[in-house]
Amino acid sequence: MSLLIVGSVALDTVKTPFGKHDYILGGSAVHASVAASFFSKVNLVGVVGEDFPVEHVDFLNQKGIDTAGLQIKKGKTFHWEGYYEYDMNQAHTVATDLNVFADFDPVIPKKYQDSEYVFLANIDPELQLKVLKQIKKPKLSVLDTMNFWIETKKEQLLEVIKQVDIVVLNEGETRQLLKTPNLISGAKELLKMGVKKVIIKKGEHGCLLFEDDHYFAAPSFPLDRLVDPTGAGDSFAGGFIGYLAESGDLSHENMRKAVIIGSTIASYNVEDFSLNRMRKLTKKDIQKRFSEFKQMTEFEGEI
Amino acid sequence: MSLLIVGSVALDTVKTPFGKHDYILGGSAVHASVAASFFSKVNLVGVVGEDFPVEHVDFLNQKGIDTAGLQIKKGKTFHWEGYYEYDMNQAHTVATDLNVFADFDPVIPKKYQDSEYVFLANIDPELQLKVLKQIKKPKLSVLDTMNFWIETKKEQLLEVIKQVDIVVLNEGETRQLLKTPNLISGAKELLKMGVKKVIIKKGEHGCLLFEDDHYFAAPSFPLDRLVDPTGAGDSFAGGFIGYLAESGDLSHENMRKAVIIGSTIASYNVEDFSLNRMRKLTKKDIQKRFSEFKQMTEFEGEI
Repeated sequence: MSLLIVGSVALDTVKTPFGKHDYILGGSAVHASVAASFFSKVNLVGVVGEDFPVEHVDFLNQKGIDTAGLQIKKGKTFHWEGYYEYDMNQAHTVATDLNVFADFDPVIPKKYQDSEYVFLANIDPELQLKVLKQIKKPKLSVLDTMNFWIETKKEQLLEVIKQVDIVVLNEGETRQLLKTPNLISGAKELLKMGVKKVIIKKGEHGCLLFEDDHYFAAPSFPLDRLVDPTGAGDSFAGGFIGYLAESGDLSHENMRKAVIIGSTIASYNVEDFSLNRMRKLTKKDIQKRFSEFKQMTEFEGEI
Repeated sequence: MSLLIVGSVALDTVKTPFGKHDYILGGSAVHASVAASFFSKVNLVGVVGEDFPVEHVDFLNQKGIDTAGLQIKKGKTFHWEGYYEYDMNQAHTVATDLNVFADFDPVIPKKYQDSEYVFLANIDPELQLKVLKQIKKPKLSVLDTMNFWIETKKEQLLEVIKQVDIVVLNEGETRQLLKTPNLISGAKELLKMGVKKVIIKKGEHGCLLFEDDHYFAAPSFPLDRLVDPTGAGDSFAGGFIGYLAESGDLSHENMRKAVIIGSTIASYNVEDFSLNRMRKLTKKDIQKRFSEFKQMTEFEGEI
């Protein structure tokens, strides 16, 4: 199965109670692609500057990620700087240096245009729409976004949201986009607007999947040592779509499984800075934690 | 099985986006007892003033709740006044008129002293300890509390917490008591201190059960119309212990089931003001929603 992931490729400067690291590998497309790579081959489209270390490209390639769509432009790579205090649910942005990302034009290489699975990581909704138009006949498209686009390009965002199969939002984005404190009514409103499926990511509280009268609630993995939450949402989405792309099965049952796999990979991703935990992660680790998810949610049937 | 519930009996004045009601039946022991009554006979110990409407006592008795331990004192019944804004997770207190509750002396009637199941709803931890001392040999004791006691009687609270089998805290109380933003490390610290089991209630995000290396995560029921959250935590605890008291089975498996039953009853309780939804609730309703909980958390086993 062919999986296309379009989004940011970044060098992040991140400070958490566990340390500070400068210009480490990050970006939505990177976190998502590496997460997906445990299940599927990935074609990545993004942009970096001339300063982007070649070792990062090597790492992506080793993970089976095709970087033919990774544009290298004159200038510097997108740089995000932020910190987390003891409440790791809240990222505080210090600086966002868009650099070459400011003029990102997501041209999809011809060989990727018949991709069956597409993840539109968080970028300008107008660019997400432009990507969608270049894909001939996607079997499944998933979209992520952020508060900035809800504030500045809400109309365009709603436009593209209606064209994809699944929209992934976090709690705050859901409340902000639908102007409601109640996540359930927010999700229901999106479905009424014509969105096919909605996933709400709730960080430490797990995530929710909505589709018509079908509803699935997944917890998060209980971690008492969360080192760096950066990229958790992207690795969730990457693991989710990567598993679906590999299996080719879009049934409710398999969608639920994919949600747990996404949650599993995200839970590993936050155990270290950047993609460091992902470098050592094995399929066996994923299987182990997947089973633990099952174990911690099961209860007997009748009362 | 004999179930004793000790806590507040109140007349509440509650305002939510769905209306305002004055001096309606409430109190931690009332919400817990009515929830438990769907499964078990309940012996209630509390105090009211002479103004407490006799119809409320009739209602409790109809539910199979023995009110021989309900003291009637000269003066007025405990009155709590509060409101909720659109974010229903947050109660705002306007007034707390303790009235006869200020001098509550929880004397346990002799016939209740061999109770096997005890729920110590939210009262002064010194009084909770006093109750515990009067019970000969409880098979299971469960304790609830609130931020006020964490602020003013932390030492006494920790003392009684170590003597019960299960402590039930909400998110905020856990963070406050253990001085950590991380719920998982908070719970683990309580276990290290000698607490046997910890339940963390997270409102719309469900709840977590911790015991040594055993962990269970339950979602909440997806409600887009939450009318009055008052008593949700108490009806959770009441349903939980009521079911355990009826079944007499304290295995891990049954504990999980009891958590879902508590969540089910709490989810009904918030659908209307006061105990109004409980007046019409049937065992069949509970079974139906219990099955829905199962349906919304299941996923297939292997990857």
